[in-house]
Amino acid sequence: MDIPALRAFLIEAFPQVAQDFTVERVDDAGIRVRMNVGERHLRPGGTVSGPSIFALADVGVYLLILSRLGPVALAVTTNCSIDFMRKPAAATDLVAEARLLKLGRVLAVGDVLIHSEGTEVPVARASLTYSIPPR
Amino acid sequence: MDIPALRAFLIEAFPQVAQDFTVERVDDAGIRVRMNVGERHLRPGGTVSGPSIFALADVGVYLLILSRLGPVALAVTTNCSIDFMRKPAAATDLVAEARLLKLGRVLAVGDVLIHSEGTEVPVARASLTYSIPPR
Amino acid sequence: MDIPALRAFLIEAFPQVAQDFTVERVDDAGIRVRMNVGERHLRPGGTVSGPSIFALADVGVYLLILSRLGPVALAVTTNCSIDFMRKPAAATDLVAEARLLKLGRVLAVGDVLIHSEGTEVPVARASLTYSIPPR
Amino acid sequence: MDIPALRAFLIEAFPQVAQDFTVERVDDAGIRVRMNVGERHLRPGGTVSGPSIFALADVGVYLLILSRLGPVALAVTTNCSIDFMRKPAAATDLVAEARLLKLGRVLAVGDVLIHSEGTEVPVARASLTYSIPPR
Repeated sequence: MDIPALRAFLIEAFPQVAQDFTVERVDDAGIRVRMNVGERHLRPGGTVSGPSIFALADVGVYLLILSRLGPVALAVTTNCSIDFMRKPAAATDLVAEARLLKLGRVLAVGDVLIHSEGTEVPVARASLTYSIPPR
Repeated sequence: MDIPALRAFLIEAFPQVAQDFTVERVDDAGIRVRMNVGERHLRPGGTVSGPSIFALADVGVYLLILSRLGPVALAVTTNCSIDFMRKPAAATDLVAEARLLKLGRVLAVGDVLIHSEGTEVPVARASLTYSIPPR
Repeated sequence: MDIPALRAFLIEAFPQVAQDFTVERVDDAGIRVRMNVGERHLRPGGTVSGPSIFALADVGVYLLILSRLGPVALAVTTNCSIDFMRKPAAATDLVAEARLLKLGRVLAVGDVLIHSEGTEVPVARASLTYSIPPR
Repeated sequence: MDIPALRAFLIEAFPQVAQDFTVERVDDAGIRVRMNVGERHLRPGGTVSGPSIFALADVGVYLLILSRLGPVALAVTTNCSIDFMRKPAAATDLVAEARLLKLGRVLAVGDVLIHSEGTEVPVARASLTYSIPPR
């Protein structure tokens, strides 16, 4: 699946959050997904909330897996380990760069680095495992 | 901090999400927090979303730490490892039972089991680490 | 599998480390496994090494799964998240208390608390996922 | 600390395991550490054991932190999340490539990819957090 196909899938399958995310790149190396940060993602002081950062990590690796398997695959997140390392820039978009480490018959594993738009230092890192349903 | 104090803190510090959570018990053994599941927490089919389950785990252990340290403590989540083990019951409240495993000078560690109201089998488990700021 | 069966399995399948572990209890609630701490598990100062603590966590949940599935099951560890919370007592046995949170068709999840013999405060906690091979 | 300094530190501080590891590269990008796989690291069938893979991940990130902070720093592992993704090649050295994601005042975070010598696909990945003692 390419960027338009991932976008269409997101709107179809997750209409509540589809507008929160923009796939900026998907290729052999991985995927880059932007979180379009809005009021609903923020905590007092303008910090992006932990659950929003988690959501971006999950969406990033999930879409990367779908880009390999196609839209029929209903992968389910089974584990996520996430490190919150720095405070995100206030009221600024977040960018996730994810890569796939394993795409097996029953399990897929990917990891992701997240940074605030305009900086390079990572705000968070996460690794996620997905259960792949039998065809 | 007891239940009314935790409630007041939540409303003051996290007004956007305070109404999502109800502290049902806090004592020496730990804390029980209910997520008042609404439309905004659901995915198509009525499943509670992963980020919402993450939010409940985080709030549960965070409030448990505050109940020990008092409201001045601005603890920050540094790590979360979460296992999603079963699909939550559709459109049903979730209940988190958390306990504190370490409350050190600079780090606190807790873990949490989450189940759907009315069942005993766990939907998710998580362990979380918080950085405690110097007094 | 009961305690003698687990012991026989350990000697048969993992002869190099079988003598390091003693199953003290296995029942509906979970399993208790002791690590018979020796020179080879220690770091300078008498602290039990991190890899040894990891090994105890892994063996504990693994044997618990085997006690449910029987010896034919070649479960494989796919993920472990472990928190090291306190320094173990010097040159003292470690005791792991593990419980099973999920025993599915393809994945099993358990968690474990580890303490030094003679104390109650946890040295470490871990959660582990295993892939269960098709029958 | 450069490679000879790290080597000297390892022999001094961890004499039991120093001969298991060889630092092959340390620079601004990170560190590469080889595990000199021997009988004691193997399980029946020639697979490198889980605790040995954990040890390599831990040593890799630990030495990387020391290369930045110098030998006085007694960093302590507080968390490790590790994914075992493929079976290592039988009786073959393992190579870890680690990078540092955060080096803060009280916490450091790094992650690591591990593969069997002679192949590129990862056997395991891990992320680790260390507590840095006050100076």
